[in-house]
Amino acid sequence: MATFRYKTFGYAAQSVGARLTPFSFERRALRPNDVAMEILYCGVCHSDLHWARNDWGWSAYPVVPGHEIIGRVIEVGSEVTRFKADDHVAVGCMVDSCQHCDQCRKGEEQLCREGNTLTYGSPDRITQEMTQGGYSKHVVVRQEFVLRVPEGLDLARAAPLLCAGITTYSPLRTWGVGPGSRVGVIGLGGLGHMAVKLASGLGAHVTVMSRTPDKEADALALGADRLLVSTDPDAMAQAANSFDLIIDTVPTKHDINPYMPLLDVDGTLVIVGQLGNLSEPSTVPLMLGRRRVAGSPIGGIAQTQELLDFCARQNILPECETIRMDQINEAFERMERADVRYRFVIDMASLTA
Amino acid sequence: MATFRYKTFGYAAQSVGARLTPFSFERRALRPNDVAMEILYCGVCHSDLHWARNDWGWSAYPVVPGHEIIGRVIEVGSEVTRFKADDHVAVGCMVDSCQHCDQCRKGEEQLCREGNTLTYGSPDRITQEMTQGGYSKHVVVRQEFVLRVPEGLDLARAAPLLCAGITTYSPLRTWGVGPGSRVGVIGLGGLGHMAVKLASGLGAHVTVMSRTPDKEADALALGADRLLVSTDPDAMAQAANSFDLIIDTVPTKHDINPYMPLLDVDGTLVIVGQLGNLSEPSTVPLMLGRRRVAGSPIGGIAQTQELLDFCARQNILPECETIRMDQINEAFERMERADVRYRFVIDMASLTA
Repeated sequence: MATFRYKTFGYAAQSVGARLTPFSFERRALRPNDVAMEILYCGVCHSDLHWARNDWGWSAYPVVPGHEIIGRVIEVGSEVTRFKADDHVAVGCMVDSCQHCDQCRKGEEQLCREGNTLTYGSPDRITQEMTQGGYSKHVVVRQEFVLRVPEGLDLARAAPLLCAGITTYSPLRTWGVGPGSRVGVIGLGGLGHMAVKLASGLGAHVTVMSRTPDKEADALALGADRLLVSTDPDAMAQAANSFDLIIDTVPTKHDINPYMPLLDVDGTLVIVGQLGNLSEPSTVPLMLGRRRVAGSPIGGIAQTQELLDFCARQNILPECETIRMDQINEAFERMERADVRYRFVIDMASLTA
Repeated sequence: MATFRYKTFGYAAQSVGARLTPFSFERRALRPNDVAMEILYCGVCHSDLHWARNDWGWSAYPVVPGHEIIGRVIEVGSEVTRFKADDHVAVGCMVDSCQHCDQCRKGEEQLCREGNTLTYGSPDRITQEMTQGGYSKHVVVRQEFVLRVPEGLDLARAAPLLCAGITTYSPLRTWGVGPGSRVGVIGLGGLGHMAVKLASGLGAHVTVMSRTPDKEADALALGADRLLVSTDPDAMAQAANSFDLIIDTVPTKHDINPYMPLLDVDGTLVIVGQLGNLSEPSTVPLMLGRRRVAGSPIGGIAQTQELLDFCARQNILPECETIRMDQINEAFERMERADVRYRFVIDMASLTA
């Protein structure tokens, strides 16, 4: 068992309001079930920005964000059986959980009764050291939270599957979406564009809902069957009762009332993009159509592997704009303006000591 | 086929703000599939009060409320096969629907695609005449919307099953409540006390949630296993993740946020008592526990019959305070002060021409 700590380097925010700048730090020494990897690509998620800026109020600085990680194994602990050097691997939003509660045993580590350990900003379960994310050259993760990147999945574009992908895939699976399902997607950003591709890949009839008609070409190109303009009262009235599931990826406080009547009886609107209060929902469409509002948090490790395999098989890939590590602050600014189609991915070859 | 109209009499509000006073009117002439009944008992629902007072803004005067009806058949149309004179029968919130849409064919007439015909305040599907409710001596209803009162069900106490009963029974069945289910009930009024009795009758472990501990004895007497005091932070924290289903019977705008963390993973809070806006719900408990908020409207005719049969078999009856017809205005005032345990039932023998 290796006992030395991994020296590595990345980009960190050192305090509230600070830009991300180069930062040298250490990863833990390999435990017997740990996998050490060189990070090849890391996606840029809105959560990264929120965490770097302390938007949720509990950021612990320095902050190295990043939880859409594609890497190459460089070393494994003595008890690691699933991976070996040079394997292409991936890490998402979690790096540990209790592994013994009912949720973990069901493969729902994201719902671990004791709380899972997030890829960044969580205390390690053994040392209490804060975890740091994938805007860095290396990371060390226990093998149970390492995914295998299947042959044929483009490494340069796969990273966003680890958060944007699983966050939208999981509710599609929870609510049984398949051929013939009628799925709506609100918001066409990082999560929304994956929801369209994945729902379409599962055989659903997919509608993108947008306030303006100008996203129609993009929506269709991503695999949607149509665009529904939510500011068009006639179109909205005509679409009443016509969805089994609506994936709501809006990242800010919003009003779900215009969308609820679009659900068919027993249909569900599932929120995946916003942590915080919703505007006041009316119970009328809930009660009159036995409709439901739900939330869904990422997905379990087994389901994330299923997603990677599904995407490799179906050749489903996120739309990415590859950036250099030193472009991250500009990328954050562009994300705030929703100026990205549809996800930034950092090419870690651009990060040097 | 009879062609004369039924002369009858009851109590009606003649305008907004008016008290209910004696009112003579006519029921339609029997159609071939109609059942005419003498009303023996009629429950008093909050909706009656809302409708009489135009609280929803679309009341059509004169208003004869009442949709928890127990009666005795006095005459049947030429094609009626299911009922005969002197049968004990019941009518709930609906008296007609399209009968051919997917929901009607599934026995979910409450979700009829064309809208069902309510027992009061809806235009009849043939004549457009406004329906009038059960605060009256007679009513004429097509046989498909007439329930059979099973032998052994106490006629004087059965009426509230037709609305308060089915409104709480239906979500218990939709969400698969049975032995071992962990059910919470918010609000211990007409609906809430039925939710407790029915969930308990289905074998669930039932918890009543109340702002104060003074309802404990009542809750236990109704069949609940315990009372959870929602203003006690320790008790609430301890109850986290411990419910599969919460039946929320609160009739006014309220905040569901304190209750959502009580639901286990994939648990549902179902609203049955309030039409209108909810206070802003947080998405945090929704997302972190994949929890759901839903609504549920009464229940279908077949399920209402199932409920009546279930209650007869299990000897489950609403707690009623029997009143005379001329006490209705006082009863409304007491309902507004929540001064009723738990449902007023009008003994129609007290109504004379």
